[in-house]
Formats: sequence, structure tokens, C-alpha cells
Amino acid sequence: MDAMKRIDKTLTTAIEQSLAASVAQASGSGCPTRLAAALRYAVFPGGARLRPRLTLSVACACSEDHPGIADSAAAAIELIHCGSLVHDDLPCFDDAPTRRGKASLHSAFGERLAVLVGDALIVMAFETLVRGCASAPHRLAALTTIVGRGAGTPAGIIAGQAWECEPVAPLAEYHRAKTGALFAAATMAGAAAAGAEPGPWRMLGERLGEAYQVADDIRDVASNEAELGKPVGRDAILGRPNVARERGLDEAIVYLNKLIAEAIESIPECSGAAGLRAVIERQTQSFLPASLANRVA
Amino acid sequence: MDAMKRIDKTLTTAIEQSLAASVAQASGSGCPTRLAAALRYAVFPGGARLRPRLTLSVACACSEDHPGIADSAAAAIELIHCGSLVHDDLPCFDDAPTRRGKASLHSAFGERLAVLVGDALIVMAFETLVRGCASAPHRLAALTTIVGRGAGTPAGIIAGQAWECEPVAPLAEYHRAKTGALFAAATMAGAAAAGAEPGPWRMLGERLGEAYQVADDIRDVASNEAELGKPVGRDAILGRPNVARERGLDEAIVYLNKLIAEAIESIPECSGAAGLRAVIERQTQSFLPASLANRVA
Repeated sequence: MDAMKRIDKTLTTAIEQSLAASVAQASGSGCPTRLAAALRYAVFPGGARLRPRLTLSVACACSEDHPGIADSAAAAIELIHCGSLVHDDLPCFDDAPTRRGKASLHSAFGERLAVLVGDALIVMAFETLVRGCASAPHRLAALTTIVGRGAGTPAGIIAGQAWECEPVAPLAEYHRAKTGALFAAATMAGAAAAGAEPGPWRMLGERLGEAYQVADDIRDVASNEAELGKPVGRDAILGRPNVARERGLDEAIVYLNKLIAEAIESIPECSGAAGLRAVIERQTQSFLPASLANRVA
Repeated sequence: MDAMKRIDKTLTTAIEQSLAASVAQASGSGCPTRLAAALRYAVFPGGARLRPRLTLSVACACSEDHPGIADSAAAAIELIHCGSLVHDDLPCFDDAPTRRGKASLHSAFGERLAVLVGDALIVMAFETLVRGCASAPHRLAALTTIVGRGAGTPAGIIAGQAWECEPVAPLAEYHRAKTGALFAAATMAGAAAAGAEPGPWRMLGERLGEAYQVADDIRDVASNEAELGKPVGRDAILGRPNVARERGLDEAIVYLNKLIAEAIESIPECSGAAGLRAVIERQTQSFLPASLANRVA
């Protein structure tokens, strides 16, 4: 196993264990059976776990001293993400029949449990931070603030989704809130979990978030459903802006490469900067499916 | 103005100011206009603000040393409550056309903003705690845990609502989670905000929560819509259990009085215990509308 694969596996184990602990806690004594099953369904099996991998990679680059804090921060970010997927898929929004290659949560458990699971995952994110910070409670306030801003209002992913309810949505603000905010929270939380200043890590998350959004637009136009695990061509059906449709596939891929380069360039000086650059380069290769990945520089 | 009215007015001012600060923060720069309006609509004007009044009354009885912490804890509890009302009113749950004497949030702003407002209010609750604890960050973990347990799973109000999605729901657990959990969080948060041990304050909240639930059942059977500000007879329509319908009005009122007496009896020894007993006696008189209130001992 090469070094990068070993790192990948270590990160995966830490993320899945931390998420499993949160779901076990939330499904404990007294929890209604179907709610517990729906919580588990919303979190496992995951997608690429991009955001929590970012959190752990940044924490590691910043020489974290309490790995349990970074694990809980990574899980909190992913729980917020999972909750947002469940609510975005609801009939009143995207009415998505599938997600991550299986029935969407409301298709499998009904709309009522989908509303409640999304709510519960938000609460779980903050509870997870408390447990993770037990050994260093002075880091809890900063992490809660970072996760709250990435999730909520005025400019987190909830606000980003709310732009779809406005008569006119400024495209940059929409994408920055809807996708960028939680990626920025992911990198900043990694730094804060390690006791580093989170501010300088915002740009890495924002650029990666925008890159991921552009890649998502490209996939929606150029991929196929089997490869993607969810329906394609949804942006056109739902009337949502799509960079690849508006500027063409080639230009969108050039733009994607530029954003990834800027992200890597923005990595602050820290003991693990070189390793982190390698991790980000590798991780961004997975933004596009295999049939398009060779077009990412 | 008598002493009790003065206390009432002081509590009201503290609660409304703390809520206004949270809504202003959440509606700040970058917030979509309709989302900001919907957030304000969900929080103002309020109902009786029973839960945050409890939090402040308990904090005061425990000789709070940082009033800002109790104010933020009270606001956090009320934000969770407001969010739960917005989601409970959704078409997939109660499909309630009105709430607090005006159109329900989804009737006024649409279902999509109702989902997002409920989500945003949960995030705001935790952010509000961080701001309130700025002067005493060592109290943040306990308060976050208390609010999280009252709100979420396995046995908070989200789990309580989820009992409606189970084929069989044990009545005691349903009510304990759906109503009791947030009342218990309200009293425990008041104690924790004042630096007191929260555990002994659980029973006061649980009994008051159950009393409030019984009063709600009585109102649903015996009140009228103009007095209540929401439709009556909904439990029968929605097939939900109702103590007053099942045991009769007289027996339900006897039971209500018993719960209130147990609540008052449970108040732990503290410097302000006598004053708190008087506050609770007065507050529980408002559990029933004027036409029934004289039947509460």
C-alpha cells in the first residue's frame, strides 16, 4: 500500500468511526425505531466524504494535538451535509427519487421522517462537537461558531438553499453559500480543531467548494445516472444555473482547473503544507467521474 | 405595578431582546430577503414564551452571576420551540393553516422556506449559546448538551414528533419527548446558566411539560378557535391521543392540578425557591384560556 492510500484509509476509518459514534448516541435508549433506522440510512453508506476528509487533512497539516477534536469536527461537518441532502431532496425542493445510488430518504421512509432526520442531524452535529471537545473545552466555542456559520444563516448552506426561494438570486452568492460555505467550514474547523487560527484557511475551502460546484455542474451535463448514483440533467429541469451548460464543457473544465490551482496555492504555511497539497491534488481528481477525470490537469 | 407584574415585564424584555439579537445576527449581511422575513415571522410576535420564562425564572432563583448567559439560554430554548412549531405545521404533519393567530409559516411563505426556517432556527439556537457564554465559556458545553438533548434524539422534541411516524407509540414516551423534553431543558438550562447543577431541576420541567400537554389537550376539546389562535378539535381529526377526550374534562383538570402541585413540590432548595414557587403558580394559571382557568386550583 503506498503512503497516500494508507493516509486515505486512516482518514476513512476515523470519519466512519466518529459518525458511527454520533449515530449510536442519537439512536440510543428511547429513540423511535423508524427514526433510528432513518438516521442510519441518511449517514451510511456515505458518498466521498469530501468535507470531513478536508477537515482531517487540514487538522493533520496543522499538527493537531487532540485527534478526537478533529474527528468530531469532521463528523459534525458531514452530519450537517447529510442533513442538507435529505432536506434538499424533499418533494418541495428537488423531489429527488434517488441519492448516493439508493432511494432518497423521503422515498424510503416518507416525507415526515425526512423532515425530522434533517432536523436531528443538525442537532447531532453540535452535540458531536461537545463530546469531541471534552478534553479541550476551550476549543468548543470556535468550532461551534464555524459549523454554525457554514450551516445556517445569513450565508451558510441553509441560506444558500433559500436563494432558490427568491425571485432573483445573485449567482456568486448562491454558490458561495450553497456549496462554498460548508467547504470553508470544513477547512476552518480542521484548523480550529488543531488550535490554529482558522481565518487563513477559509480561501482553501471556498475555492474547493466552488470547484466542487463546477464539477457538479459538469457531471450534471456530461455524466450518466449509473456513474453518478443520482439523476442527471436535473439543473435544466429545475431551472437552476449550470456553468457547463452556460459556457460549454471545455470552458467549464478550464475554469475547474483554475479553481483547483488557486485552492492549492492558498494553503497557508504550516508544518504539513507539502503533504496537504498532495492530498488536495489527489482528492480533486475524484471531483469528476472516471470518463471525465483525465481532463482535469 | 405589583412585584409580580414587574418581574413579568423584566423577563419579557430580556427574552424579546435576546431573541431580537439572534434574529438580527441571522438575518445579517448576505441573507436572502425572504428568508430573513420568514425568520422574523417565525419568532415574532411570540406566544406565551413559557419555556424561556422558565429558564430565566430558574436562573434567577439560582442566583445567576452572568445574566447574559441565562438570556441566551432562554432564547436558544425558544428558538428550538419556534422551529419545531414551523416544522410541525408543515403539510406532511399537521397541515395547520394558522398558528399564534396568524397564517402558519408555510401558508405565508411557502413550504420550502418553512423547511429552511425550521433548520435555521436550530442552528441559531446553538450560535446564540456561544454568544451568551462569551463571558463564561466553561458553561457552553453543559448548555449545548442540555439544549441538544431537549431538541434532538433519542428523546428530545424531534424524537417526540417522530413517534407519530411509528406504527405504535407508547403514550408516556411520546408526551415526555414531544413536550416534556424541552420544558426539562428549559429548567435545566436555567440552572446551568447560573452555574448550578442542572440534574435536580429536571423534574420541575418534566412535570410542567406534562401539565402543559394536558392543558393543551383540554383546550383542544373545550376551547374555541378565536380564544386559542389556532384550530380546535385537531387531535380528533389527526387521530392523536388526547387525555381530556379519553378521560373526560373533569378528570383531566384534576390530573392537571396534580401535575402542577408536583412540579412546585419538586423545586430544589435554593436562595430564590419561594419566589420561584410564586412565579410557577402564576404562570401555570395561563395554561388554560380564561373560560377554563378558574377550574385550575
